[in-house]
Formats: sequence, C-alpha cells, structure tokens
Amino acid sequence: VGVDQYWRSFSNHVGMSVAELDTPCLLLDLDALEANLDSLSRLLPRTDLAVRPHAKTHKSPRIARMQLARGAVGICCAKLSEAESLVGAGVEDVLVTTQVVGEAKVRRLIGLARQAVVRVVFDDERAARAVSAEALRAGVRLDCLVDVNVGQDRTGVAPDLSAVALGQAIKALKGLRLKGLQGYEGNLQLLQTASSRRDANRVCMERLGVVVDLFRKHGLCVDTVSTAGTGTFRFGGAYPFVTELQPGSYAVMDSTYAQVEGVEFRLALSVLTSVVSRQQDRIVVDAGSKALSTDYGQPRPRDPALSYLSQGDEHGKLIFSGPPSMDLGDRTEIIPSHCDTTINLHDRYTVIQGGFVVGFWPVTARGSIQ
Amino acid sequence: VGVDQYWRSFSNHVGMSVAELDTPCLLLDLDALEANLDSLSRLLPRTDLAVRPHAKTHKSPRIARMQLARGAVGICCAKLSEAESLVGAGVEDVLVTTQVVGEAKVRRLIGLARQAVVRVVFDDERAARAVSAEALRAGVRLDCLVDVNVGQDRTGVAPDLSAVALGQAIKALKGLRLKGLQGYEGNLQLLQTASSRRDANRVCMERLGVVVDLFRKHGLCVDTVSTAGTGTFRFGGAYPFVTELQPGSYAVMDSTYAQVEGVEFRLALSVLTSVVSRQQDRIVVDAGSKALSTDYGQPRPRDPALSYLSQGDEHGKLIFSGPPSMDLGDRTEIIPSHCDTTINLHDRYTVIQGGFVVGFWPVTARGSIQ
Repeated sequence: VGVDQYWRSFSNHVGMSVAELDTPCLLLDLDALEANLDSLSRLLPRTDLAVRPHAKTHKSPRIARMQLARGAVGICCAKLSEAESLVGAGVEDVLVTTQVVGEAKVRRLIGLARQAVVRVVFDDERAARAVSAEALRAGVRLDCLVDVNVGQDRTGVAPDLSAVALGQAIKALKGLRLKGLQGYEGNLQLLQTASSRRDANRVCMERLGVVVDLFRKHGLCVDTVSTAGTGTFRFGGAYPFVTELQPGSYAVMDSTYAQVEGVEFRLALSVLTSVVSRQQDRIVVDAGSKALSTDYGQPRPRDPALSYLSQGDEHGKLIFSGPPSMDLGDRTEIIPSHCDTTINLHDRYTVIQGGFVVGFWPVTARGSIQ
Repeated sequence: VGVDQYWRSFSNHVGMSVAELDTPCLLLDLDALEANLDSLSRLLPRTDLAVRPHAKTHKSPRIARMQLARGAVGICCAKLSEAESLVGAGVEDVLVTTQVVGEAKVRRLIGLARQAVVRVVFDDERAARAVSAEALRAGVRLDCLVDVNVGQDRTGVAPDLSAVALGQAIKALKGLRLKGLQGYEGNLQLLQTASSRRDANRVCMERLGVVVDLFRKHGLCVDTVSTAGTGTFRFGGAYPFVTELQPGSYAVMDSTYAQVEGVEFRLALSVLTSVVSRQQDRIVVDAGSKALSTDYGQPRPRDPALSYLSQGDEHGKLIFSGPPSMDLGDRTEIIPSHCDTTINLHDRYTVIQGGFVVGFWPVTARGSIQ
C-alpha cells in the first residue's frame, strides 16, 4: 500500500461525528488552532518583528503553511530530517535550529539547500568548515547564524568574544553567508509567573545584547537575531535588537503551558480515550504513555472534575473529584502535558470542528529525529 | 512513494559500517537478539510451559516470527491494531492482552478473527456480550480468557467469585469459547532483588490459584492460564496451574531491566548518537526525548565511564566520570531505559552484526495504539 492510498483510506471518515471515532486518537480542534494562529500577531510587542514558528511542535506542513499564510517569514525545524520533510511538502524557507554535524548530515543539508532556502546555526568552527566545503562543491550558499548560549547551557558558544571569533570564521568561509545570531532560552519557557519569566529573560537578552554589540563593533552582520518561544516571545520581542521569534507550542498548546501565567492560547489538542475497564474501585481508559507523553508529568483531562494517572504504556486511570460518573465505553478528552512529544507519538491528527471530523492530517515529520 | 519503495531505498545501506550511519538511529544487535531468544527456553522452570512472547515491546512481525520459530505458541499484542499489524505480516495466532471495548473495536476484532486465531480477554460481561453478538453475526468463534486482577489494580476482575460469574457468562455466550484466565502482575517486573520479586509474585499467584480452583469447582475451563513477564516468568512459571508465559522485554532488554537481579539477557538495543556540540563545559549529543524515552528515567550509555542526561526533545548531555574523551562528531551508543516506549519512537531498527549493518527492519506496529 502506498502512502497516498493510505491517506485516501481515511476520506470515508470525514464527516463522522467525534462520538463515532475509534480511540485513542489525537484530536485537533480546528477553530482553536486557527484562533491561536490568528492571535499571535496581535500579541507581538513590536510591529516590525519577524515570526518563524517552530515546526518541532506540530511536525505538519499543513499547519506550517497556515502559519506562512498568516505572515510567518519561514519555519523553524529542530532537525534536518524535519526540514527535509517540510520542504518536501512545499515549505520554502527553513531554519534548522540545532547543529548540523557529520558527513552524512552535511551532504543531506546541501541536498536540501538546492531545493529551498535553508538556514543553519553553528557553535563550532569545524562544523561550519565542513558545511562550507560541501556548499562550495555544490555551488550553493547558505545563510548562517551563530548559536549563542544565553543561559540554557545546552548548545551555543559563550556570549563573549568566542561568538565574535566564530562569526569572523564563518564570514571568511566560502559557501556561507553570516546573517546574525540565534540565542534561544528554552529553559525559561515554563517559568510559572510572568514576572519570573520577564526577569529571567532580561538576563538572557542582556547576554545576547552584549554579543549583538560585539558583532556590530567587529563589523559582523546582525540582520537576524532569532530567539524566544511561546513563554517568552512577548518579553524577548521587546528588545530592539531582536528581529525574529521562534514560538512553537502556541499553535496547539498543552496542559503545562496552560498553567503558565500570561500564555493565553487555546487548548487545541487532546487525546480522545474510552473507558475500557470499569471495576468497583477504578475506571481505566485506553491511553497510556504510548498515546500521551509523560516527560512533562501527567496529562490532564479536559473535564476539570477528572484527573488522569498514567498506568503504563497502554492505560490510564481516571480519578474523580466526586462520585465516578463514567462507565464502560464512555469517552473523554485528555490534554497532553507536552504537545511536542505527544504529537510525535501519533501518525495523524483527527481534525475536528463543532463535534465533527473535518479531516485527517498526517504528522508528516513524526519520528524525524535525524 | 509507496511503502515497499520506501523500504527498498534502504537496501543500499546494508553492508555499511556502523561508523557510516547517520544519527540518531535505533540499533539492534542481531547476535544479542538471537542469544536472548535462544536462551528463554533454557530458563523456563518447567518443560510443559507455553511461551507467548509479547509484541508490545518489539512491534516487529520479523522478531515475532523468530520467536515462533523457537517454539512460541503464538504472540501477545497489547492493542488490537498491533494484532492487525502482526496478522497482516503473517503471524497466525495472537492474544490481545487488553480489553476490546466499543463498536468500532468489536467490528475490527471480528474482521481480524476471520483471518487468524485471535484470543481476547474480558473483565466485563458487557464487553463479552458485544463481541459475542458480532461474532455470531459473522459466524466466527473466539477463544476468551477472563482477565483477573492479581494485584496490579489496573484491569481485571477481583480474584474471587466475580471471576466465576464472568466465566459463566462467557461460557453461556455464543461465538465465544472460554479457555481460562489471564492474571498479569506487571507491577512486579522491575522489583530489584530476586527474592522480593519471588515473594511478591507468590501473593499474586496465590490469588490466581484461588480463581483457578474456583473455575475447576464450577466446571469452567482453565486450559490456559496466562501470566508473567521478563522479570517474573521464572517464578510464575513454577506454579503448576500456570500454562502460558508472556515475556516481552527479554528479546531486546533495556538499562532498567539490566539492573534487575536475575534478569540476565543481553542488551541488544541502543540508540547511536553523535556529539553535535562540544563546548568548554559540556558535550551534547543529538538524541533527546524524541529518540530515547524517559518514562523509566534517564537512559544509560553503553560505555560505563559515561552517563547521559536528557536535555529536552532533541538533545542529551554526556557526563564523564574522568576527563571528557569525546569530541565533535564522535559517536556513542545509549541504552534505552525503557525498550517498549523507545522502540515506539522509531520507524525502523538498524540491524547490526559485528559492526556492520545487516538489515533494516520496520517497527511495523509503531504507533498502533488503538
């Protein structure tokens, strides 16, 4: 069976009511998704900011195109294979936000750069040299950002003259075009209060600002300074040197972000589950850690009278604040605690609107970890 | 692109050395896998025990066939869609170890039962009635087990006369054939010491034994009494009323099971990663929680001088007990902490032997959560 036939096999189900769907399945509420995509631009702290939404969350070229249609300048991808998947589906401008290292990856990167605008980040001159050599051979030129560690302590060069040294090295390399900086503060996104995020973000943006000044002083390009996520774009975007924002989760949201003060997007994503066991002392549904990720803790039922407790790979227990009100076969929606890793478990979104299925969208870049 | 062409596209890479593989990728060591499959029968506490390995771990019809070739009586599946996937790939006898509930599921179950021997478990008479009605309509008959709660408190009826009542109800239903009991003690599998597992298992097996006696007393069939996993099959299998064992993880193992006393299978599974960022104070690899699940905690590098700390969806940090000995582009293998949920993240196994790739096997039932 080919991929196209596979997707056509779902067409029969469009128009079905949500009550008829088999479970568990990943529901995407189209109204909530569109509301989230629409409201982003209204929330930007400056009108001249570029938005480059992160596709590591949704992994869907369809949603990426909806973001582009609303003014996004391009799309962020976490991995090269994610970028390949989006470019293959018609997205024409991607930034790979993680380091591209290794012979196979460099070949793939250059292959992709012949088909679309592909930007990359570097935190090591050796990685830049490897890409440069292959770009030169292929006759392409790639826009590059220096990845700066603004406090997450994951990737990125120190926010000092080491960034300048790397910038100068890249500037001198053929096949590369230095465009500026990336300084992502992923570690701040879920700080609960707005003031704690704003304060922690200030520290990171001051570090990034130091590098921006150093770059200017040394005649290095800072046309692009890319940063921020769903939790911080309103703060980071206020700094005048920031040009581009990378929010991802805002499109669909999850129960963890819903607890973060000032992040007011709608919960567009849920996993529909059924009660498959109803005993005296417990009610068990058919979604476990293979349907709902737990790396951010327990997911949360949409019904506030319920809570959910993962019971291994295939099951979860429902805990009722009052007397148990569900029986065998009854269904309920569980909001993922982490949208990125939950979406990555599913092959498709069941897209719903007003209680009916309006489409099935593939999670095209699911499993794109290379 | 069709599915067959997709798989043919990997043929070129067979024969490649592991050093040439792009990362991250899921490695399966064929020698270790075969050794694990071979040694299971030697470890059984009785010679008359049937083995029905659980495919929820490997999700691979290829590995299922290797298990059947070594004497397995059939295969366990956690979900109906997993069973559909295996039957579609030639497996002819499956037990679905979780409850099949809901109209869509029942139709699918009966569809599958027309193509293979499909056994199901019940812990609710209403679910049995629904399957019976549809089986009768389709003219098929399904073997059934009563699912008993022996202590996990997840699914299963209480280990008392409620099990008998359900057994009698099933016996009276057309289209169903009562074959016995399932009593899985999943909560004991990872108890660290052999003696603690043996003792806890005794409590569970006594509960199951009570139900076996009640079934016999009431003239109900106990030809099949199915239980145990990789951590307990040597204990559970010693009880004379137990007829069938359901181990899954033994085939490939993980770092959590490797810490469990008396579970001495080989670590056949790992995720190959590359260093993608090498800064003064840290070494970061390209595998995060989308490549290595963390529901059982941090995965563990194969090299005992290293430890691994997940850094979000796409990255992990390597911690060295001595001076850091790896540089940009260097590779290392990380052993998953939980084989089931890690395999479920990957589309394929890269099967290796003696440092070379001998094949790519699809994780056929990946994402089969329904």
